[in-house]
Amino acid sequence: MTEFFRDIPKVTYQGASSPNEFAFRHYNPDEVVMGKRMEDHLRFAVAYWHSFAWPGGDPFGGQTFDRPWFGDTMDLARLKADVAFEMFDILGAPFFCFHDADARPEGANFAESQRNLEEITDYFAAKMEGSKTRLLWGTANMFSHRRWMSGASTNPDPEVFAYAAATVKGCMDATHRLGGANYVLWGGREGYETLLNTDLGQEADHMGRFLSMVVDYKHKIGFDGAILIEPKPQEPSKHQYDYDVATVYGFLCRYGLEKEVKVNIEQGHAILAGHSFEHEIALATSLGIFGSIDMNRNDYQSGWDTDQFPNNHAEKALAFYEILRAGGYTTGGTNFDAKIRRQSLDPEDLILAHVGGMDTCARALKAAAACLEDGGLEAARKERYAGWETPQAQAMLQSDLAAISADVLARDVNPEPRSGRQERLENLWNRFV
Amino acid sequence: MTEFFRDIPKVTYQGASSPNEFAFRHYNPDEVVMGKRMEDHLRFAVAYWHSFAWPGGDPFGGQTFDRPWFGDTMDLARLKADVAFEMFDILGAPFFCFHDADARPEGANFAESQRNLEEITDYFAAKMEGSKTRLLWGTANMFSHRRWMSGASTNPDPEVFAYAAATVKGCMDATHRLGGANYVLWGGREGYETLLNTDLGQEADHMGRFLSMVVDYKHKIGFDGAILIEPKPQEPSKHQYDYDVATVYGFLCRYGLEKEVKVNIEQGHAILAGHSFEHEIALATSLGIFGSIDMNRNDYQSGWDTDQFPNNHAEKALAFYEILRAGGYTTGGTNFDAKIRRQSLDPEDLILAHVGGMDTCARALKAAAACLEDGGLEAARKERYAGWETPQAQAMLQSDLAAISADVLARDVNPEPRSGRQERLENLWNRFV
Amino acid sequence: MTEFFRDIPKVTYQGASSPNEFAFRHYNPDEVVMGKRMEDHLRFAVAYWHSFAWPGGDPFGGQTFDRPWFGDTMDLARLKADVAFEMFDILGAPFFCFHDADARPEGANFAESQRNLEEITDYFAAKMEGSKTRLLWGTANMFSHRRWMSGASTNPDPEVFAYAAATVKGCMDATHRLGGANYVLWGGREGYETLLNTDLGQEADHMGRFLSMVVDYKHKIGFDGAILIEPKPQEPSKHQYDYDVATVYGFLCRYGLEKEVKVNIEQGHAILAGHSFEHEIALATSLGIFGSIDMNRNDYQSGWDTDQFPNNHAEKALAFYEILRAGGYTTGGTNFDAKIRRQSLDPEDLILAHVGGMDTCARALKAAAACLEDGGLEAARKERYAGWETPQAQAMLQSDLAAISADVLARDVNPEPRSGRQERLENLWNRFV
Amino acid sequence: MTEFFRDIPKVTYQGASSPNEFAFRHYNPDEVVMGKRMEDHLRFAVAYWHSFAWPGGDPFGGQTFDRPWFGDTMDLARLKADVAFEMFDILGAPFFCFHDADARPEGANFAESQRNLEEITDYFAAKMEGSKTRLLWGTANMFSHRRWMSGASTNPDPEVFAYAAATVKGCMDATHRLGGANYVLWGGREGYETLLNTDLGQEADHMGRFLSMVVDYKHKIGFDGAILIEPKPQEPSKHQYDYDVATVYGFLCRYGLEKEVKVNIEQGHAILAGHSFEHEIALATSLGIFGSIDMNRNDYQSGWDTDQFPNNHAEKALAFYEILRAGGYTTGGTNFDAKIRRQSLDPEDLILAHVGGMDTCARALKAAAACLEDGGLEAARKERYAGWETPQAQAMLQSDLAAISADVLARDVNPEPRSGRQERLENLWNRFV
Repeated sequence: MTEFFRDIPKVTYQGASSPNEFAFRHYNPDEVVMGKRMEDHLRFAVAYWHSFAWPGGDPFGGQTFDRPWFGDTMDLARLKADVAFEMFDILGAPFFCFHDADARPEGANFAESQRNLEEITDYFAAKMEGSKTRLLWGTANMFSHRRWMSGASTNPDPEVFAYAAATVKGCMDATHRLGGANYVLWGGREGYETLLNTDLGQEADHMGRFLSMVVDYKHKIGFDGAILIEPKPQEPSKHQYDYDVATVYGFLCRYGLEKEVKVNIEQGHAILAGHSFEHEIALATSLGIFGSIDMNRNDYQSGWDTDQFPNNHAEKALAFYEILRAGGYTTGGTNFDAKIRRQSLDPEDLILAHVGGMDTCARALKAAAACLEDGGLEAARKERYAGWETPQAQAMLQSDLAAISADVLARDVNPEPRSGRQERLENLWNRFV
Repeated sequence: MTEFFRDIPKVTYQGASSPNEFAFRHYNPDEVVMGKRMEDHLRFAVAYWHSFAWPGGDPFGGQTFDRPWFGDTMDLARLKADVAFEMFDILGAPFFCFHDADARPEGANFAESQRNLEEITDYFAAKMEGSKTRLLWGTANMFSHRRWMSGASTNPDPEVFAYAAATVKGCMDATHRLGGANYVLWGGREGYETLLNTDLGQEADHMGRFLSMVVDYKHKIGFDGAILIEPKPQEPSKHQYDYDVATVYGFLCRYGLEKEVKVNIEQGHAILAGHSFEHEIALATSLGIFGSIDMNRNDYQSGWDTDQFPNNHAEKALAFYEILRAGGYTTGGTNFDAKIRRQSLDPEDLILAHVGGMDTCARALKAAAACLEDGGLEAARKERYAGWETPQAQAMLQSDLAAISADVLARDVNPEPRSGRQERLENLWNRFV
Repeated sequence: MTEFFRDIPKVTYQGASSPNEFAFRHYNPDEVVMGKRMEDHLRFAVAYWHSFAWPGGDPFGGQTFDRPWFGDTMDLARLKADVAFEMFDILGAPFFCFHDADARPEGANFAESQRNLEEITDYFAAKMEGSKTRLLWGTANMFSHRRWMSGASTNPDPEVFAYAAATVKGCMDATHRLGGANYVLWGGREGYETLLNTDLGQEADHMGRFLSMVVDYKHKIGFDGAILIEPKPQEPSKHQYDYDVATVYGFLCRYGLEKEVKVNIEQGHAILAGHSFEHEIALATSLGIFGSIDMNRNDYQSGWDTDQFPNNHAEKALAFYEILRAGGYTTGGTNFDAKIRRQSLDPEDLILAHVGGMDTCARALKAAAACLEDGGLEAARKERYAGWETPQAQAMLQSDLAAISADVLARDVNPEPRSGRQERLENLWNRFV
Repeated sequence: MTEFFRDIPKVTYQGASSPNEFAFRHYNPDEVVMGKRMEDHLRFAVAYWHSFAWPGGDPFGGQTFDRPWFGDTMDLARLKADVAFEMFDILGAPFFCFHDADARPEGANFAESQRNLEEITDYFAAKMEGSKTRLLWGTANMFSHRRWMSGASTNPDPEVFAYAAATVKGCMDATHRLGGANYVLWGGREGYETLLNTDLGQEADHMGRFLSMVVDYKHKIGFDGAILIEPKPQEPSKHQYDYDVATVYGFLCRYGLEKEVKVNIEQGHAILAGHSFEHEIALATSLGIFGSIDMNRNDYQSGWDTDQFPNNHAEKALAFYEILRAGGYTTGGTNFDAKIRRQSLDPEDLILAHVGGMDTCARALKAAAACLEDGGLEAARKERYAGWETPQAQAMLQSDLAAISADVLARDVNPEPRSGRQERLENLWNRFV
């Protein structure tokens, strides 16, 4: 064992009244909720980047964290992996997620970067043999290095497109090698800073073609995980093409990929796009493209992506309700795309942030499940739309404007509004939260 | 002539140095810009609702305007039309737009409302015979009356869907009768207040079916104008289904309507959705669904739709640049979906707001045209993407990840970033604005 | 008893597991929390305007509610009061709040409006004799009528200032007559739409002078309640002068009123100003100007004041924690400045919205009290600032830059950052919420 | 001369029709506007940090700029200064501004950092002897290094307060040595991330005491420049204490400093606080605390500080109008707190961004001056408030509520609203812009 978490015990469930900081008070992996173990419901993942690769900088300040593995050598990359898997073990985390750039040092050229990635992939594979932790998803960081500054697949320079294609191939290979359940694409630079120098249409076509290649490659190598796009409206780009779930859906339709690609939805990104988290989930499930979630919270008073650990279970319960209503995750899971605050310097902070986040989600899941099992909310919803179940209503949907108009005149239709009962339903919801 | 605008002269072009408040300083209808008369480029329309039907209320206060035509009789509706056409004439406005509810009193039942609409349509038709003003578009107000409080085509009550269908049929008939160039649908209540009582998927299906009926009816009656959806993200609804251009595009694809329906883009709605006006226009043109615009401005410090008259030509020039680049309007035009402030009580205010708005747009159009004719900006854009014109780049687009990766390794590709030149291009732009 | 709430029982506490919609599950008026009855802690008030005077309109739609008391006669005003006091009784509400315009019909001139107010004040006084409900505060509506469109005390027209002074005098008299605990001023039109026609400095001076007159009048009539300003950043005005707590504090200092006037803080207004509710409360308590709160919630995805009933106790607990830390209310209370959604048509909706809001606050209060009584959070805070308790640190505060600089050089000061422990503290907080 | 700008000519005024990228089209330093040379009106300053110290990183990506002076040695610091003064000369910039950390390498301890600063200050002084460029202001960077992560003067650790005091003393000395016209404090970390670990009141008291020490030290050393606080609402902090102009004013009053300290207003910060730039300037001038401005623009669609170069003169003209109305700058100036986009890699981009910004401001100044000299706008404003000039209105201001109320009743006051004429005034404004 490394030094980093030396005095921190393995975190176990000890019940809601436990005063122990290093215990779960709500997350009990083996507890059965709606017929499934909580661990299997929630499928928690640790994000390698925030927890192990982020130095604590922000736009107005530099590194705050001192980590013994910071640096650019393969030895340090292995030390980082050692610490990471220790944390997975302490938390009992069933999954992790990573970008190439989190895990391996950048090489002098693509070939060296690729070799580094392959080596660290092997190292991960060896560590996973002694661990219960699986890979929820892998992805490529195509936004941090200056080569990506004007986009990856949407770059005006075809050489960057080529570099991106090679990079994604390498990351998909690594994900496949590690048995990943999904492969994710987040296009932080797939957008623009100014329309004055941008050809929107050409960039979209390139991005569509790129995504088709990704899907083709998935099938070619027999990767049976899901391909996921992660929407975000902006930041770092002024405008990002994968703005939100609805935008991604239109993009997939345009390039014939709506049956092949799903979405990885992040709370903070939803908020930046002007949506609630639960809206984005409900929309994705209704469109048949729900994949996975990046769990975090945004600060509603901040106009950028704060990636904080969730701490309000009442809010998250609305998200889990939509997930449970749709049948729960298939390949997806709950990835903590969340970072401790840059002032949270201590190793304990890293552990406790995850403990709090996991407990928040567990409370949220249980509340959502209780409400769903009660059935009152769904019964009220069904009752509200009951008028549509009549043969007349169904026939009208197959009719046309002129016939309906004639009917309205004939029957002197004059609909009387009925209460939407929002506050009553909120009260009902609060019985479970 | 009525009393209302009695002392106000017809507004004519008198040049930029004119001190006359009631003159155009930039809008010269007959001036030729890029081979077309300005009037034919801009296709200005007056919005009946803001100018003639709005009493000046806001969420915290009631009516401020005293208008002799306010009230619920057909006589007053005709007086309103008389004043409106007088204003069209004073401004030389080539177009107007209206909702049913702006133009006719609500009847005791649907049949009476429909009769009132037909009567006022005949009255409009008669007025148009003596006027140069045409109808840019008609539309149905399916958001103000309490029957629409839970939606029109997306209402949980099928009787409301029926009433909506009959209403739209009536408005399409009126639009067709008046030779309208377009028919617009804005779904102010097609959205939700809370997910707790909402079935997103079912509502989308009903909205899709409704729109298909609209398209079918258009063909049935031989209306050759365009069907336009006007996106807005929210307000009055917490979430509106036609969030923005990208969302509408996805919706159209889902229901197979992307070749049949276009968009009417409003500046204020773009801003509420987190976009610039020019973004929404550029996106719509790239997707082939650009139709028309609702010209106004939003206050960037206010979180709701302020519908102010445009007064910053530098900002609007970016919008007109995208319109001109795409070839200009076909059926569309520049509709002032803008209202004078509720403190602007005088008849003069109503005229001068339009004069200022028309001049702002005219300046913007001329600046955009000058920049486009100069060609420097387009040359810079073309040069930025020039790498894609090589056979190698085109071949790569038809290739696959593995082949491209092999090529990257073989050629040791290492792309060097090139300046995006944003500030240079902004300076170039400012030579014309 | 009137018909309106005929079948609705008096709401009583029945415990968290009660399935009864018309019961409190958390609010138990007589339960003692931190040495005080919950009723005395929370001091709930019903807002007359939202519950009884609002017709359900929004910027895109008109009246949705059918209420038998809607109309402009004194008989209807008395019927409204009858229903209101019935609701106070059903809820066991200890307080209510009202504007003049909520309670009495507008007269043909000021004298008649004033007589109407006096009559309805007498009627209220009579009803209060048979009720436990007291008046938390009174206020004047100086924003709805068109005379206020350009401001009340800040109006460019001194006649409006005069009318405002007379109006406030009448409302203060009514508040005093009814034994109100506070008098509130919210300046919805004390702001501007455009700087082009505004003299900021002169308007501020008039507003300062007006407020001084209010304070003088309070002392003159022996009203011993608090004078409260309610901050809001905008809406309906583009900019409102009482932007937020910090702005109000500066304004009070400028006119020498910081010992005489306090603030009434609203959650929704805090959010519109870019603050959390708890921030505004904590700031006001630290400045010594905390008075009372308007309890509601805003929709974080909407850019306007949604005035919804609170339904997330975890969020409200942060607010109550700040109130309890500062010793609780003195003259203030928890006024539900919240309105049911315009689709919530039924009388039950009005009752249940308050029941849910009261329960949400009660849960929040108990959670906040438990955390405060635990003491862990306050101990951590105290420990974080412990360095300042040393004599050296206190001496430094009385020193000067040159001496401190010399000391830094002499001691080679090089401070080592310490963890801010945010996530740990959030976890601690969540043990109680 | 260094290599960096080798082929770039000195930028001169060549008139609006000049096609030369490296020419001013509007900024003519010697042109007299309202009796003063443009250079003396605008008092442009280059910001050392953005132009010479920023590597091009953003929250999702690292360095994009390759600059020969990047690194941590005194030799490189001198090379940076050489290039900077070459740019000042190319632009004819009359001023610059800098932080300690922009100009000198961080030392191993405070003493070494201080020595480095003194050395580079001497180097600046020597360069200024051969240059027309003066120092508009100096400041201390107390936000980038990890020691400041929890605040400078508001840090829970008194050792950091001490370090801050020593740092500011050093920076004030350097500013004084270089003849700076102002000294600025921007408190990027003077705020909080969470209220859970924060004592708002104690932090405010420390900040107030710190500022008093700064004022005392100014007087002690005979520095006759102005002390300026730069407001910002947030970023990097979740909440920053110097939120906006109104907040700073209240803070100054609380600590008795409102006669000693003024504000440096930034456009981007104004927008983040929910204000227009011109609002903040107008408010500061009305409060007597206007000092200087940080000129840039924010992207209205981005929720963070984008610090872009201004490029819309119509928008900036509103700001300059308020400055001119108040008599222009005294010690202040127009500092470009603006950075080129991280994709703008070339040396030319740096020059041209400033050229564009200076031209934008020059156009704005001339438009504002023309409108002010025309007098129409001010006459309309004066006319709107004319009612307050009567003896009766002035007497009323000295009266009391009871007397005014009696008068309202006696005279049956019933004010008739008058048009605010916003659109007319906007049109008038647009005659000059």
